[in-house]
Amino acid sequence: MGAEMKELWQSRRTLVERALQAELDRTDILDDKLRASMAYSLMAGGKRLRPILLMAAADAVGVDGTKFITAACALEMIHTYSLIHDDLPAMDNDDYRRGKLTNHKVYDEGTAILAGDALLTLAFTVILRQQDVPAERLLRVVDETGRAAGAEGMVGGQMLDLEAENRRISMEELRRVHMGKTGALFRAALRCGAILAGASERQLAALTAYADHFGLAFQITDDILDVIGTAEDIGKPVGSDEKNHKSTYVTLTSLDEAQSLARQTVESAADALHIFGDEAAFLRELVLYLVRRKQ
Amino acid sequence: MGAEMKELWQSRRTLVERALQAELDRTDILDDKLRASMAYSLMAGGKRLRPILLMAAADAVGVDGTKFITAACALEMIHTYSLIHDDLPAMDNDDYRRGKLTNHKVYDEGTAILAGDALLTLAFTVILRQQDVPAERLLRVVDETGRAAGAEGMVGGQMLDLEAENRRISMEELRRVHMGKTGALFRAALRCGAILAGASERQLAALTAYADHFGLAFQITDDILDVIGTAEDIGKPVGSDEKNHKSTYVTLTSLDEAQSLARQTVESAADALHIFGDEAAFLRELVLYLVRRKQ
Repeated sequence: MGAEMKELWQSRRTLVERALQAELDRTDILDDKLRASMAYSLMAGGKRLRPILLMAAADAVGVDGTKFITAACALEMIHTYSLIHDDLPAMDNDDYRRGKLTNHKVYDEGTAILAGDALLTLAFTVILRQQDVPAERLLRVVDETGRAAGAEGMVGGQMLDLEAENRRISMEELRRVHMGKTGALFRAALRCGAILAGASERQLAALTAYADHFGLAFQITDDILDVIGTAEDIGKPVGSDEKNHKSTYVTLTSLDEAQSLARQTVESAADALHIFGDEAAFLRELVLYLVRRKQ
Repeated sequence: MGAEMKELWQSRRTLVERALQAELDRTDILDDKLRASMAYSLMAGGKRLRPILLMAAADAVGVDGTKFITAACALEMIHTYSLIHDDLPAMDNDDYRRGKLTNHKVYDEGTAILAGDALLTLAFTVILRQQDVPAERLLRVVDETGRAAGAEGMVGGQMLDLEAENRRISMEELRRVHMGKTGALFRAALRCGAILAGASERQLAALTAYADHFGLAFQITDDILDVIGTAEDIGKPVGSDEKNHKSTYVTLTSLDEAQSLARQTVESAADALHIFGDEAAFLRELVLYLVRRKQ
């Protein structure tokens, strides 16, 4: 990633951190422990990919993405809640996340469940705090977000994933799991950014196609990193997929084939952006950067 | 409750049952077990109070409440998700609910957590499926619902409740718990019905006041029934509050005082409706009926 793009990425991340804290601060949370538990996971760092994608989609359409920072925060809240619930003993039972103890290990299971519920709910309220957007567009954003996050998207994918544990699944099933579990929210991020910026149907379709390739490339890279990454870089034990008999793009094909598929998918993502000019430069670099990442 | 009112109640309940099923049916849930788990709890009967209150509030304002059946379903989905999560081992650890096994006893904990997440998320999508309402009003309904369901309302109240376990709390703390845990969603039901029907500020304020008295009367009655009800009627063991050292309106005062407070609160609820005519007859009878209920 070029220096200019890295700077943009960093400044947007800083913006997201501040906005997330501000949205928490202006919420009248009834209980201090609940607030602490929500903040523990929400402010734990991370790449902030979903809000950054939302803003970048608006940029691509020609509107300054930072205008939509508030709505962008909603997607990060939904992502965070999904991590808290996924880590629970009844789900993936993980003790660490990004090198820190998981929410239920710091607090307790009941609190972690409620913190997740509260972040999911707050996301919808936060979308409505977005200023200077016509009501019709905000409703579309609520709709895109709700469908992407729920049984038709992320929660549905997580359920498919739970059911796929300890058995070998087909490439098609794996794709369905990821399209739901992670793909749907990436897609919502890009689409919501486009909608907020008043994209044309053609622009919306192009950004949706980019999103789907992006999501696939992201997931394949995750699976590759589980094999070749280091525990320090990725913040959790490596080789956990193989240990857990998890079907991944690597275990279903090979490391070589997965790396080749990742490269092809990155190209497809870039191709999807051909209707845009320089305004989409960040999106073009982002997908490249992500398949080269170490965590 | 008069025969006419009983008939209205029954016909509205039937309407809610059908609409809930229809909203589930039109949702493209990715996984069959997830669908089954969501349907198990959502279609398990119950009083359907929240959607009925929403419709009754619209009636009071002079608009046929059944017009808003779709938005009304959203509140029942949120109520149902809260029951699924509250029953989990990490929370109240209940095996039975309304005389039936709880969701996680029929399915498993992971599935129950996800079914709850999915119902909460679906609620927001379902609000947007409501036809023939201006965008601005729908946004207000999303906002009212989100704030009532989240850390500022129901989830916040549930957290306060978890923290109040096994210690004696003050009457003021008890009120805070219930204002959040159950009161906020009742309030949202009445306010959303009023907003959808285009209520004036004065009408909205009156229905909000009614909602708060209604919620209090409902909770006091719950606490009384835990002492004087029969297990068969209420579908769970009686005396569970005392066994669990739970602070209630009965344990903090006495059975007599609680019953007297319930009567006063019902009167206050009825008083709040004085600006309405016969259109509010159902709301007037409803609160009376609820303090006389056996379950």
